Amino acid sequence: MSQVLDRIRNGVDSEQMYGTLDALKANPELGIFQFRAHNHWIDGAHNRSKIQAFYGAGQEDTTRNQTFVLDAGEPAILLGADTGANPAEYLLHALAACLTTTLVYVAAARKVRLTEVESTLEGDMDVRGALGISDEVRNGFSRIRVSFKVKGDAPPEKLREVVERAQARSAVFDMVTNGVPVEVGVVTA
Amino acid sequence: MSQVLDRIRNGVDSEQMYGTLDALKANPELGIFQFRAHNHWIDGAHNRSKIQAFYGAGQEDTTRNQTFVLDAGEPAILLGADTGANPAEYLLHALAACLTTTLVYVAAARKVRLTEVESTLEGDMDVRGALGISDEVRNGFSRIRVSFKVKGDAPPEKLREVVERAQARSAVFDMVTNGVPVEVGVVTA
Repeated sequence: MSQVLDRIRNGVDSEQMYGTLDALKANPELGIFQFRAHNHWIDGAHNRSKIQAFYGAGQEDTTRNQTFVLDAGEPAILLGADTGANPAEYLLHALAACLTTTLVYVAAARKVRLTEVESTLEGDMDVRGALGISDEVRNGFSRIRVSFKVKGDAPPEKLREVVERAQARSAVFDMVTNGVPVEVGVVTA
Repeated sequence: MSQVLDRIRNGVDSEQMYGTLDALKANPELGIFQFRAHNHWIDGAHNRSKIQAFYGAGQEDTTRNQTFVLDAGEPAILLGADTGANPAEYLLHALAACLTTTLVYVAAARKVRLTEVESTLEGDMDVRGALGISDEVRNGFSRIRVSFKVKGDAPPEKLREVVERAQARSAVFDMVTNGVPVEVGVVTA
């Protein structure tokens, strides 16, 4: 029992984690993943993404047996009907979720047991950019602030180190801070 | 009836849209918005964001009467239990949703009636970066491909123009392609 408890830290199976890392070191091509989303417009600001299939570790995934369905919307003041969080809010969630999971994995690897991880994110936007009224402001957030509250069985400086390492390794933090090349194709028929 | 139909295009009330744009032109400070997300860790790769409050148009919003709850996870091969789409997939959804809504609004403003908007997004990632195994690959997607299928009562070139304009104005497209400054603070007590 205590061996099992030692092995599972922060809900992460450390034996499985080390096994995965070893497999990737031995066979780097297993690291190639492709994630996907399919979106369709419903009405106005209401659209819906379905997410299930992905490629990874040398094959098309067959283990995920459910489709995640995500509805987007806008509040009334941005001409929507609140059919879901808006796209910019989804981006904040993506960032919060990725920093948190990375932090939890890093802590597990460093043998830190966490008891609480919370974060509040704020993104500042002048919507005149996206609405096409002003070219002097950008379309997206001018900045994002993330405030973490982290508790666990380690001294504050160790917990801070874990958060710093999470920033250094988070996939979405990398994308949101550094940007990603995006190609857009259109079929009209 | 036909006046109402003329006014509502693609689920967007064009009279409300022009009213909003006029108000923002007259009072640029109404364009200042702040969007927020609160996230808490549950276990392993499972964490949850709650999204409701935002600031915009000169005041704290009071119209949104529901909290959007978003669960994140990872598939088993990435040490999770599929408790939700993963953070990188949420980013794809944010991008799809923003491009789509922007496209729908642009079409409404240009008097194009859309009948179908679908998109497929693919993001390529070598997970050795985020897992800390390799410094030679980045943590996030190396690239994202977006494939739109758009139909409506306009010639193909007009529909393509609408998609191009959506790219030029989408908040999340701007953020994902250009990056955003992100500040991270930590409280450990």
